[in-house]
Amino acid sequence: MRFEVTTLGTGAALPARGRFPSAQLLNVRERLFLIDCGEGTQERLRMAGVNMNRIARVLITHMHGDHFLGLMGVISSMHLLGRTAPLHVHGPADLREVIELQLRVSKTFLRFPLHIHAVEHRSGAPVFGDEVVTVTGLALRHRVESTGFLFREAPQPRHLIKEKVGLIPHYARSAVKEGQDLVLPDGTVVPNAELTAPADPQRAYAYCSDTAYAPELVPFLKGVDLLYHEATFLEELAARAKETMHSTARQAATMARDAEAGQLLLGHFSSRYKDPEVLREEAVQVFPHTMLAQEGCTFQVGRSAVHA
Amino acid sequence: MRFEVTTLGTGAALPARGRFPSAQLLNVRERLFLIDCGEGTQERLRMAGVNMNRIARVLITHMHGDHFLGLMGVISSMHLLGRTAPLHVHGPADLREVIELQLRVSKTFLRFPLHIHAVEHRSGAPVFGDEVVTVTGLALRHRVESTGFLFREAPQPRHLIKEKVGLIPHYARSAVKEGQDLVLPDGTVVPNAELTAPADPQRAYAYCSDTAYAPELVPFLKGVDLLYHEATFLEELAARAKETMHSTARQAATMARDAEAGQLLLGHFSSRYKDPEVLREEAVQVFPHTMLAQEGCTFQVGRSAVHA
Repeated sequence: MRFEVTTLGTGAALPARGRFPSAQLLNVRERLFLIDCGEGTQERLRMAGVNMNRIARVLITHMHGDHFLGLMGVISSMHLLGRTAPLHVHGPADLREVIELQLRVSKTFLRFPLHIHAVEHRSGAPVFGDEVVTVTGLALRHRVESTGFLFREAPQPRHLIKEKVGLIPHYARSAVKEGQDLVLPDGTVVPNAELTAPADPQRAYAYCSDTAYAPELVPFLKGVDLLYHEATFLEELAARAKETMHSTARQAATMARDAEAGQLLLGHFSSRYKDPEVLREEAVQVFPHTMLAQEGCTFQVGRSAVHA
Repeated sequence: MRFEVTTLGTGAALPARGRFPSAQLLNVRERLFLIDCGEGTQERLRMAGVNMNRIARVLITHMHGDHFLGLMGVISSMHLLGRTAPLHVHGPADLREVIELQLRVSKTFLRFPLHIHAVEHRSGAPVFGDEVVTVTGLALRHRVESTGFLFREAPQPRHLIKEKVGLIPHYARSAVKEGQDLVLPDGTVVPNAELTAPADPQRAYAYCSDTAYAPELVPFLKGVDLLYHEATFLEELAARAKETMHSTARQAATMARDAEAGQLLLGHFSSRYKDPEVLREEAVQVFPHTMLAQEGCTFQVGRSAVHA
């Protein structure tokens, strides 16, 4: 089942070189999340062929323009495209006032319910959860309060062993998939291990942008399949990274290595880098499984993609 | 001397078909004005090769997202590009709160002075004036208060007749250009008409969007060289135009005809029209000198362009 991320914008604050501000579309088993929403995100979604009204939730990390200025346009277009389903927006507490003011002055009365939730700036704090995925916060370090997001798939059912399926009465199948032993009508107990193979592992994706190097996040990122981490600068600009509270490619790779991530995806490239390949080259020295985000490209979440 | 407008966005509220939301760059003798600023305007400016920091003033007609959502991005990029010159923003009274709130929550401290001026919603009300151009308001009719803008070039000096230039002492030249007679040291008076040819006419440009058909504006638009008027719909959707307080192409053309405009430029095309040529075809039946705005195209302001 699908767990993939489409990177819609990979630039930093100043758009340049064909790169756009931060935005990602995450598809977790057909639940669509929009993560950050820089200016022009609706245009990027259109180019990626995404039906905006399938997006259930928007998550905003922080109140810098390159991460939220596209949100009003997305909301407005959802409205004009006839949305009726509720939209949930999770982000910093200030986001509510920014949205509500602009709806008020434009006299826009949305046709769909808009729910705005303030995100707690604490690693591990719950953001959202349902039967498919849970989302928790990651307390990033930035000039304004910035909260990343960890998406973890809900536990999957065990797989029924094909040859044994005939043995299991229909009413007992979900219990067996959940790991229970099978008790037959005559009292015979068939151990679960004889009927099922282990469930697929719970896949996880983490989004860390914008942030300075924050090693205290490593325990929360442990074993994540795909880590998106900002890499605004090369290590030679580490002082500038520290000052602006961004990360270098080497720092991003260090996070991925220490968290034992499956793969690392870099983004939020400074406009000074014509080709972000230099950032990847720096990162792979620390963490080999490193990829570069690119406008409109989709990346699978799951170790098999690389480690198979 | 240059007087020209570059149309950066020609779409209506819902971006589609390669059209973008409203924005225009007006160059009046190297004074640059940005008129309206829909989402993505900074990207359009970049594509048009415009140095954003040459823009002295931004004029916003009304508080619908497709006319102002790109403004924070433009301001932010001006800041990141090192602007130090003041920026003046003229628009509805609500604009100040929208800008100031977003600067505050993003903790952005601009490196340049930002002056925000509330525009009076009254035709003929002064907006701005200097030695090159005066800008006055046009009270449009829309669902929210919407104010168009009339740009009129300052009176030009008369032209010195080439063969007579030698007769005129340097100190007297500007007076002669302004129409005064020349008094020679011996007391002889040379009538101005013998020394000068008439000044170039004062060129004028009007921007009317968004608005329902508003014939009361005609006296203010009289003789304008170029009239930009929204044409969201065809006449067959006149009822929809009335309801949403937009104009049809025929109504736009009627305004141009009654105002005796030099040329008419149509824009703000509904996403339902794949090719806006149908709107032009409707308009030319009423007013022949009609052109279609197009992303990145530049149009000259001045009768000679068409009537020569």
